[in-house]
Amino acid sequence: MTDAPASVAEEGAETLTEALDALASGRTTAEALTERAIARARAWQPQINAFIRLDAEAARAAARFARAGPLAGVPMAHKDMIYRSGRVSTCGSTLRRNWVAPVTATVLARLDTAGAIDLGTLNMSEWAGGATGHNIHFGDACNPWNPAHVTGGSSSGSAAAVAAGIVFAALGSDTGGSIRVPAACCGVAGLKPTWGRISRAGVMPRAPSLDVIGPIARTVEDIAAVLAVIAGPDPADPTAADVPVPDYRAAAKADARGMTLAVPEGWFHEELDTSVAAALEAARRVFEDLGVRVIPVSLPDLPALFTLQAVVTMAEAAALHAPIMRSYPGSYARGLFERQQTALAIPAATYLDALRLRGPMLRRFCAAAFAEADALLVPALPCEVPTRAETDVEASGDWGAVHARMVRNTRAFNYLGLPALAVPCGVTANGLPTAFQLAGPPFAEASLIRLGCAYQRATDWHRRLPPLPS
Amino acid sequence: MTDAPASVAEEGAETLTEALDALASGRTTAEALTERAIARARAWQPQINAFIRLDAEAARAAARFARAGPLAGVPMAHKDMIYRSGRVSTCGSTLRRNWVAPVTATVLARLDTAGAIDLGTLNMSEWAGGATGHNIHFGDACNPWNPAHVTGGSSSGSAAAVAAGIVFAALGSDTGGSIRVPAACCGVAGLKPTWGRISRAGVMPRAPSLDVIGPIARTVEDIAAVLAVIAGPDPADPTAADVPVPDYRAAAKADARGMTLAVPEGWFHEELDTSVAAALEAARRVFEDLGVRVIPVSLPDLPALFTLQAVVTMAEAAALHAPIMRSYPGSYARGLFERQQTALAIPAATYLDALRLRGPMLRRFCAAAFAEADALLVPALPCEVPTRAETDVEASGDWGAVHARMVRNTRAFNYLGLPALAVPCGVTANGLPTAFQLAGPPFAEASLIRLGCAYQRATDWHRRLPPLPS
Repeated sequence: MTDAPASVAEEGAETLTEALDALASGRTTAEALTERAIARARAWQPQINAFIRLDAEAARAAARFARAGPLAGVPMAHKDMIYRSGRVSTCGSTLRRNWVAPVTATVLARLDTAGAIDLGTLNMSEWAGGATGHNIHFGDACNPWNPAHVTGGSSSGSAAAVAAGIVFAALGSDTGGSIRVPAACCGVAGLKPTWGRISRAGVMPRAPSLDVIGPIARTVEDIAAVLAVIAGPDPADPTAADVPVPDYRAAAKADARGMTLAVPEGWFHEELDTSVAAALEAARRVFEDLGVRVIPVSLPDLPALFTLQAVVTMAEAAALHAPIMRSYPGSYARGLFERQQTALAIPAATYLDALRLRGPMLRRFCAAAFAEADALLVPALPCEVPTRAETDVEASGDWGAVHARMVRNTRAFNYLGLPALAVPCGVTANGLPTAFQLAGPPFAEASLIRLGCAYQRATDWHRRLPPLPS
Repeated sequence: MTDAPASVAEEGAETLTEALDALASGRTTAEALTERAIARARAWQPQINAFIRLDAEAARAAARFARAGPLAGVPMAHKDMIYRSGRVSTCGSTLRRNWVAPVTATVLARLDTAGAIDLGTLNMSEWAGGATGHNIHFGDACNPWNPAHVTGGSSSGSAAAVAAGIVFAALGSDTGGSIRVPAACCGVAGLKPTWGRISRAGVMPRAPSLDVIGPIARTVEDIAAVLAVIAGPDPADPTAADVPVPDYRAAAKADARGMTLAVPEGWFHEELDTSVAAALEAARRVFEDLGVRVIPVSLPDLPALFTLQAVVTMAEAAALHAPIMRSYPGSYARGLFERQQTALAIPAATYLDALRLRGPMLRRFCAAAFAEADALLVPALPCEVPTRAETDVEASGDWGAVHARMVRNTRAFNYLGLPALAVPCGVTANGLPTAFQLAGPPFAEASLIRLGCAYQRATDWHRRLPPLPS
């Protein structure tokens, strides 16, 4: 923390795409961008606690050796459950405070090859098992727009670091909303891709039937740039599907005119805060002005999808954690421990039913949602971003109610394996950001990118940066 | 049952391969073979109850239209859980006494294309959930060598119909031993292929993580002929692996000299009846005389593998049956109902542990078993074939002990997904057949066929036919 603060506020690129342009034109260098990122990380850290580990020297060394590649010279950092061989990966747990990862995640290897610079590891909910961003071991991540408020979780540090302008993009993981919820809370974009779109080799599992890795960035265009590098099959992960990778960067540049968005009735509007509803309505009008047709739709099974996601997640998480809970019960925050302990009683027959229902429900859902529409338009978070105090389940013990609210609108898409993109679309009554969510059919990420980019070309929410801490 | 008994005992082909030769040379016709099979089915039915449904007219019609194809004109019949569209498939349950299958299994479609003639549906344990061949709904299948003894199960009718010389081959299914146990009890050969070797589309599931379909025939050469037709990937079953199908018929003709068999210590010999041990020892000497090296080996995890197979099977079966058990509890034999009801309490975490352990245990097992050997040589059944009375769990209530004995030597290979071939190798003190089991690495069916055929060329156990009922 000895750098001159001058570099912190240095003018210049604020999106990944702008950074690539500035690098290409020689207006900046990888080293300058890296210095700025390190300085900003240090300036923000006391307020938002986004980093678990800042690898300043490694990042500087990487920046000095400029590479070719689609992300050459771009500072990034990632959720601390995406392994790099030889580096500590805490997974947000005190148990892994000194645990050195034995492998490098395929996604990190691909980012390395693309020339991205890795600044370090980002804060997260303990074992990726919470939606608020609280962490009793490493301290809560705090929202850059107001540190009294949550970042959302579990990819808390990823959203906070991008929102604060420290890094241009960050990877997170999403099992029930863990990319989209923090993106929405922090006012940045976050993509939960189709299950199977991106390799999970070398990443801590939470619930393997639902887990996905995805990018958080300021703009959807930036998300497309990262997705283009990390998507596709991987010999190290048989679940990474051999589905063609479309040209996501081209999709980011395309017009959205003539596309159709479906706005579902019911569920997504039932517990919506007024100012969130107003922001969503404004976004709807922007899409209409862009020539996007907006139609109503009635969706089946939403309460069941919400519950089935929890059955699958908690059964798989409990199975993974059973031996750890036996040996180190005291290593967990109380709320997480109790929830996982309860889940040990989920019967295999119930779990297998939940898996078996997935196919029929996916077919029924897609038939209703995407018969006429390219994507659904729904709120990402039903409520205004809450404070850390009011969602502190270690104090209140009310894990269920707090989490049911945070992930009410995101879980269904995990259970169904569908891609969903959170895009910031306003500021609510409490001064914090809010976001909509676009969800599409399997492997339709390009449609979501096309719609999200068109929206961002017509609006400025993604241009806002919270003031640097003084 | 009005045919003249003369055709029943007609001399001629007794193996599938001999039948193909006789057909090719014009010494017999598809119609003559079919008439003989129908006559034998009728003559045997009162004693062994192998058929649930004999489709004599359909078989005759098929025989009249001779086709080309590797199994053209060969009478077969199959376990009554392998669906043919429009035909009743009882699955051994009274609930499906009149249930008409909506699809044709891929394996039956392939046999049809190969020109095989389908004589009808064969008896089986209720819902494929028993290892003895008892059935309270359709009557027990009885052993053609002595109807007071069990056929083994659950593919009871398949083994009995082949052993009685009614059909040249029959398909069965195997989740814990359901092909190999009845093959061993009835003195015929039975192949449980590698999980993923053969499509299961259109077949009743018992425990999808372990279920396989496979052939029962008098000789291993015949098994190779059927396997060559039905093995390989299938668009209708994503679990049917896209692994090359070797030339199984060539493997059947190859010499076994220079191959290596491993005989494991411990588990497989711990509860072995004396006369079974003697037959196994005699088989070992036959292999040595054939120039096969026989080495001892120590195998890991056998008691655990036995238990883990049961966890996976019972959790998956209970999940599939939960709604049926709720709605129609009285439709089940008591033993099966109680066992499946108990399995509803298996926790998802336990089930997921069992699945997760499969990979590491498979690697460890194969490293030990197949480091120097092409296959394992173990007994298929540890005991002499018991009587129906002493294994009647509806009377005794002792499901656990009876079944633990019947599938003691077969289950591990289901849990590990490995191929295993039962080959008859003698007659025990009670006058019933016994068999050894060859087990190999994944997709090494050709090695098992090569070894099994070499053994059968040197021995005559497969030539024995029980006397036709008078």
